[in-house]
Amino acid sequence: MKHTADQIRRTIEETIARLPLEGEPPLLYQPIRYAMSQGGKRLRPTLLILAAEMYGAEAQDAIWPAIGLEVFHNFTLVHDDIMDQSPIRRGVETVYKKWTSSVAILSGDTMFALAYDLLIRSESSRIREILHLFNRTAIEVCEGQQLDMDFESQEVVSIDEYMRMIRLKTAVLLAASLKTGALIADVERNEADRIYDFGICIGLAFQLMDDLLDVYSDEALFGKKTGNDIVTNKKTFLYLKAFELANARQKQELEQAFSTSSPVEKVTTVRALYDELGVRDATLNEIQRLHQISESFFDNLPAGISQSDELHKVTLGLVERKF
Amino acid sequence: MKHTADQIRRTIEETIARLPLEGEPPLLYQPIRYAMSQGGKRLRPTLLILAAEMYGAEAQDAIWPAIGLEVFHNFTLVHDDIMDQSPIRRGVETVYKKWTSSVAILSGDTMFALAYDLLIRSESSRIREILHLFNRTAIEVCEGQQLDMDFESQEVVSIDEYMRMIRLKTAVLLAASLKTGALIADVERNEADRIYDFGICIGLAFQLMDDLLDVYSDEALFGKKTGNDIVTNKKTFLYLKAFELANARQKQELEQAFSTSSPVEKVTTVRALYDELGVRDATLNEIQRLHQISESFFDNLPAGISQSDELHKVTLGLVERKF
Repeated sequence: MKHTADQIRRTIEETIARLPLEGEPPLLYQPIRYAMSQGGKRLRPTLLILAAEMYGAEAQDAIWPAIGLEVFHNFTLVHDDIMDQSPIRRGVETVYKKWTSSVAILSGDTMFALAYDLLIRSESSRIREILHLFNRTAIEVCEGQQLDMDFESQEVVSIDEYMRMIRLKTAVLLAASLKTGALIADVERNEADRIYDFGICIGLAFQLMDDLLDVYSDEALFGKKTGNDIVTNKKTFLYLKAFELANARQKQELEQAFSTSSPVEKVTTVRALYDELGVRDATLNEIQRLHQISESFFDNLPAGISQSDELHKVTLGLVERKF
Repeated sequence: MKHTADQIRRTIEETIARLPLEGEPPLLYQPIRYAMSQGGKRLRPTLLILAAEMYGAEAQDAIWPAIGLEVFHNFTLVHDDIMDQSPIRRGVETVYKKWTSSVAILSGDTMFALAYDLLIRSESSRIREILHLFNRTAIEVCEGQQLDMDFESQEVVSIDEYMRMIRLKTAVLLAASLKTGALIADVERNEADRIYDFGICIGLAFQLMDDLLDVYSDEALFGKKTGNDIVTNKKTFLYLKAFELANARQKQELEQAFSTSSPVEKVTTVRALYDELGVRDATLNEIQRLHQISESFFDNLPAGISQSDELHKVTLGLVERKF
C-alpha cells in the first residue's frame, strides 16, 4: 500500500519520538532530543520513503534509513549553527546557544554516529551502495558548508561557484535521499542515477526559492524575518545576479545600499535596486528552467510505475511561488 | 605471512601518506592532511592488523578498516582539542589553533565521514557486525568525552565513575580495533568478545599509565611537560586516589596544594603528597591488576593460533613502567 506524504510525515514524527535517546550522560542526549524534536518539514525522509514506495518497496523497509538521513540533516544544522553563530532556528534557541559550543559539537558528533547506526538497520541487498552514497554525500555537504563560509571573505563569487556550493550544501542530500529510496526498492543503476539527477535539479531550485523568499516573501507565511540575507550581506543567488546584471553606476548603488547601517532602510533600498535590475524575474526564470528539466524525470519513468503523483506533488511544492 | 609491528606501522604510514586528501575546498582538506600527518603511535590500526593476522587474515584485508579507525581517532582529537582548548598536540599547533574552530569542526566532521568510507572498503562477510561495532564505539567515545567534561565542574567524582569514563573515552576504541581485526579474520563470536574484553583491560591500564606518567615520567622520555594534569587540576586516577586515601588533614593539604598558583611549586607539593599517600604504588597496583587479567587472553587462544608474540609485545609496551 502506498501512503500520502502526510501519512509518511506522521509516521516519521512518531518514529523520531520513539528513538531511544534517553542515554547518559544527559548533557549529550538532551541536546539530541531537543534538536530532533524541533519539527521542520522532514523533507528528506519523506522524499526517501515516497521514492521507495513509488518503485514498489514497502515503507517499513525504508523507515530506518529515512530517519538516519533526517538525523544526519539535523546534525549538520547543529554544527552549522555553531559555525554561523546563529542563535535561533525554527523559532527557538539553537543547541550551541541553549547549551555551549562544546555540547553542540559533541552532541552533533553523536548524531552523526547515530545516523549511520539507523542507516545500517536497512536489510537492503544494496546496503554497500547506500552506505557509499551516504559517505560521499556527507563529505560533499561538508565541502558545501566550507565553500559557503569561504564566500563570506571572498571578494568575487561567480554564479557558477554559487551553484556549485548550493549543489553540495543542499541539493546532494535531497538527491541522495531519493536515490536511497530507489536503491531500497532495488531499481536498476540507471534509474537510481536518474532520480538522483532529478533530486539535484529540485534541490537547486529549492535553494534558489529559499533565497528568493528571504527577500520577497510575506513574513508571516515564510515564518522568519524577511530580508535577513540582505541585512547580513549574504552572497545569495539574488545578490550575485544583481551584481552580474548591474552597470557601473548600479554596481556603485548596490555597494552603497549594502553598506547601509539601518536594517529596514537597507532591505528597502536593496530590494528597490533588485526590482530595477529584474533580479526577481531572473531568479524565477532560473527556478523555472531547473523545474522544467526536472519534469522530464516523471515523463520517463520505467513501465509499471504509475503512482508517482505524491512524489510529484511534494517536489512541486518545493519550487512553487509562495507569494 | 605475518608482519612485525614495525612493518605494520610503516605500511600504515605509507597508506596514510597516499590517502586522496587533495580535495577542494583547501580549507577543508589542508587541516585533514595536517591532522593525519602528525604521526603518533598509530596504535589502533596496528592493533587491528596484528589481531587480524594473528587469527589468520591477510594484512591487505585489514588495512582499510585499520586506516578508517585511525582517521576516526584523529577526528576525535581534532574535536576534543576545540572543546578542551588545547593549543598544542604532538609538539605542534592543534587544528583549531592553527586555523579556526569552524575549520576544525568541519574538517573533523569530514574525517568522520571519511573514516566510514574507509571502513566499508572492507570486503569482510562480517561487515554489518564491523559497522555496528564501530557505530556503538563512536557513540561511546562521545559519551566518554562528555563525561570527562562533566567531571571538570563536578565536585565529587568516584573512582568507579572515573574508570567508566576512561573505559568509554579510551578503552572501547582499542577494544573495537582488536575486535574488528578478529571479525575480519572471521573468528567465532566468543573469541571476538574475548579479544574485545582483553582490549578493554589493556585500554584501561594504558590510560592509568598515561595518568601516572604525566606526574612521574622523565619529561624527555614522555615528550610532554610533566605535571600538566596537576597544574590544570584534572581529576585523574591519581588525583581521585589521593583524595580517597587521604585523612581529613591530608585532604586539606591536598586542597591547599591544588590551589597553589606557581605551577612548579604546585607540581612539587602535590607530588610530595602523592608520595606520602602511596598514590604511585596504588596506581601501579591497579595497572598490574588489569594487566594480569588481560594476560589470561593469551593463555586461552584457540588451537592453531601460535603467532601471538607480536600482539603480546605491543600490548605489553602500553602498560610497562617507563621510568
